[in-house]
Amino acid sequence: MDYFSTEITNLIEELGRLPGIGNKTAQRLAFHIIHMPKEQVDKLSDTIKSAKENIRFCKECFTLTDKEICPICASKERNKKLIMVVESTKDLAAYEKVGKYDGVYHVLHGAISPMLGIGPNDIKLKELMVRLKNDVDELIIATNSNLEGETTAMYITKLVKPSGIKMTRIASGVPVGGDLECIDEVTLLRALEHRIEL
Amino acid sequence: MDYFSTEITNLIEELGRLPGIGNKTAQRLAFHIIHMPKEQVDKLSDTIKSAKENIRFCKECFTLTDKEICPICASKERNKKLIMVVESTKDLAAYEKVGKYDGVYHVLHGAISPMLGIGPNDIKLKELMVRLKNDVDELIIATNSNLEGETTAMYITKLVKPSGIKMTRIASGVPVGGDLECIDEVTLLRALEHRIEL
Repeated sequence: MDYFSTEITNLIEELGRLPGIGNKTAQRLAFHIIHMPKEQVDKLSDTIKSAKENIRFCKECFTLTDKEICPICASKERNKKLIMVVESTKDLAAYEKVGKYDGVYHVLHGAISPMLGIGPNDIKLKELMVRLKNDVDELIIATNSNLEGETTAMYITKLVKPSGIKMTRIASGVPVGGDLECIDEVTLLRALEHRIEL
Repeated sequence: MDYFSTEITNLIEELGRLPGIGNKTAQRLAFHIIHMPKEQVDKLSDTIKSAKENIRFCKECFTLTDKEICPICASKERNKKLIMVVESTKDLAAYEKVGKYDGVYHVLHGAISPMLGIGPNDIKLKELMVRLKNDVDELIIATNSNLEGETTAMYITKLVKPSGIKMTRIASGVPVGGDLECIDEVTLLRALEHRIEL
């Protein structure tokens, strides 16, 4: 690509390393950035650096935050005895958008996956066990509903069961508004198995 | 979005300002960046800033470059008497990828568009006229084949015609490999009008 200057080629390459950004998109973004006002470019560049430098794990729930303790764990309105286990900060955000959950979270940062070589020690499981030594009423397991998520849920269940803490798993079934004919067989079966009485 | 920390929210917002990057993609990119090694993040951030700071117009053809004169204009192997007029550096790159053109370019940085309020003075037209005072054999007009591109091509033709310089327009017709049934009527008509003898 020597028909662009080195600076443009470098920018296209760096942008192209991001997930889901192919060469064409990287090129489009690069030219957009070059045509942006200088202040905006500086702001973009500084925000990227600053986010990486200042983001750390919350000391309690291990979500990504720029404070010692994240706003959720720091809030006095949240029930500290109700813990929802999620795989990532994005999952936490998904439930926070719903806005109906008033407990706290525990972010694992991954799920057990023998395929990818991710074992129980590679996710924040030990940290969960430490938290469970405090007074906890209920542990809601909200890992994803795929192989890795289910494996992780099962592993946590076995690990925590002996302590006698109440454990629940978020319901799995037909999504609201979903057409039955478009839904996979496993989900249909799950929805049938977990049917509720009317 | 106060369930993310300010730093993450800022990063998502800044990335979301880029064209074609919606909120979901911005979120995905932001979390990817936060999980990237620090050196990679610094490199991305620095490359963005450095590209904006060092990219300028080539003094001859006005393409975007980090040198006074771009590699194409500086090359001794390129025919300076053959100038192809394109709308953007991306269009120049498209022809350079083909690798069969040995002339030089003139980048207009836009096209005349009364709809968007872009007039002849808003693109690098005066600069083209200055270049045409030198010895030029042929001017190839390779603006896009849309309303703005055609308007610009017509305008340049009227402007340059009196000087007696040979002017050509890139051919317009059915793209190679294109199915006739999928091609719009204007293109089909154009292909018929400009049919060549076998």
